[in-house]
Amino acid sequence: MKTFDLSTYLKKQQDLINSALDKWLPKPHGPSGPVVEAMRYSLMSGGKRIRPILLMAGAQAAGGDQKAFLPAACALECIHTYSLIHDDLPAMDDDDLRRGRPTCHKVYGEAVAILAGDGLLTYAFELICKPELTQNISPRLLGEAIFLLAKAAGVFGMVGGQTADILMEGRPVDAETLSFIHSHKTGALIKTSVEIGGLLGKGNDEELYHLKRYGESLGLAFQIKDDLLDVEGDQEILGKPVGSDDRNLKATYPALFGLKETKRKAQELLKQALSELEFFDDNAEPLRAIARYIVERDR
Amino acid sequence: MKTFDLSTYLKKQQDLINSALDKWLPKPHGPSGPVVEAMRYSLMSGGKRIRPILLMAGAQAAGGDQKAFLPAACALECIHTYSLIHDDLPAMDDDDLRRGRPTCHKVYGEAVAILAGDGLLTYAFELICKPELTQNISPRLLGEAIFLLAKAAGVFGMVGGQTADILMEGRPVDAETLSFIHSHKTGALIKTSVEIGGLLGKGNDEELYHLKRYGESLGLAFQIKDDLLDVEGDQEILGKPVGSDDRNLKATYPALFGLKETKRKAQELLKQALSELEFFDDNAEPLRAIARYIVERDR
Repeated sequence: MKTFDLSTYLKKQQDLINSALDKWLPKPHGPSGPVVEAMRYSLMSGGKRIRPILLMAGAQAAGGDQKAFLPAACALECIHTYSLIHDDLPAMDDDDLRRGRPTCHKVYGEAVAILAGDGLLTYAFELICKPELTQNISPRLLGEAIFLLAKAAGVFGMVGGQTADILMEGRPVDAETLSFIHSHKTGALIKTSVEIGGLLGKGNDEELYHLKRYGESLGLAFQIKDDLLDVEGDQEILGKPVGSDDRNLKATYPALFGLKETKRKAQELLKQALSELEFFDDNAEPLRAIARYIVERDR
Repeated sequence: MKTFDLSTYLKKQQDLINSALDKWLPKPHGPSGPVVEAMRYSLMSGGKRIRPILLMAGAQAAGGDQKAFLPAACALECIHTYSLIHDDLPAMDDDDLRRGRPTCHKVYGEAVAILAGDGLLTYAFELICKPELTQNISPRLLGEAIFLLAKAAGVFGMVGGQTADILMEGRPVDAETLSFIHSHKTGALIKTSVEIGGLLGKGNDEELYHLKRYGESLGLAFQIKDDLLDVEGDQEILGKPVGSDDRNLKATYPALFGLKETKRKAQELLKQALSELEFFDDNAEPLRAIARYIVERDR
């Protein structure tokens, strides 16, 4: 087996996704131009593109031609970015800084920021119906993928998790509620990224089962690592203030279980995620490397 | 031809849609319960259900079995309601009253209201993938319908129109910009309701062409009538304050062209909408009656 170079891989995939997003996103034009500008401002601000990369890596693990799935991958990034814009709003987490730049509402005002989020969420479903994708998959798969996407983004996923997170602010949170928040707010979309990838890549039932379980462990590991970075991270590298969870009285894993147990849990989840991939050949190498990266990253 | 009784028809369709919405919407449960409550509060507050009714009437005009399309019809109502929740927010139109009841953010707070809107928008795409619908149409049609829905709701439709409307508040608006706002903010989703109906009902190209043009005229007539009601309507019947466009310095048809010309325009659009339906048989009777109702309603 060749050594897998993750940073080269990530760079290549990010470039692919960034140029697809730039190509497919509408251009600012006419009386509604500012909302498109705001969508582009938040979308093209140098995110890690973890979710679209996971979709394509999931498709590769199942043996599918990953490039054909770029529209679905970009749809995930639109949904992720919309959630960041809305989470940052004054009525929600009231954050001024995101990825080292002023948040969307700081630049475009609250009204346009709300609409930019709405626009990105909606545009995700336009993207996933693009002929570039639909001509490469069976329409049954398309329906399934759209259903999974909507479910992961909605009240049974991200919206549900963010609701619980907001409502529990400043209140004591038990392990069960924290697990609900984590698995819904971040976990659902990450798990679904891998799952949709496997599905579009025509994975069989057994492959899909393992990809889903990999995604579950990874999603939780991702959020736990985010919590850790908020305690121990470097503001310069993160591009946002550290300690904001604490100031916002947010429920976090370290607050509930302590730093040591949190780090142990992250490692355990990494191990669990990797064990699901034993079922796959070298095509799952990106998924393996991404799992390690998620738990060891510094931003 | 039997005389068509519109009020009986509307009541029957509304009952059908209301019980489908009630059955299919999630039930409040667990830590995210409040957002589902808020979604249900706004969704089940006695709207006229014009968009879902138009979808089913469009399907009937094309000769399709309209009941099979209930999930798509309900998806339209979810998108419409999400747009009302977000439009009413303090950062947008800052309205306290909607359909005679306190607006969503007045009852559940801003954060949950934003999330309830996000939840409804997302849930629309879950609904339209329901087996009750997908087993009755070809998957190619499903992809087309989802694409049309996302486009009408997004920056090329509703989101774009609301952006222009918000940004032009208090500034002089010319006829071209007003037409942009009207056709995008309200027109796009109304036109698309009829169009998706015709599409799912397996209308041929000529039928779809006329349904689309009917929807265009109707969408503009609907918004012009809304503007008229804001000037001349009865607050008791409307369930919201009259004169709010004027107070909010909103661009409206009467403000730009005067009452007399506005009423003439509404009648002209009605005539135009009806002329598109000359192509159809008695199955288009609901669409004909709805067009008359839209222009003559008092709420």
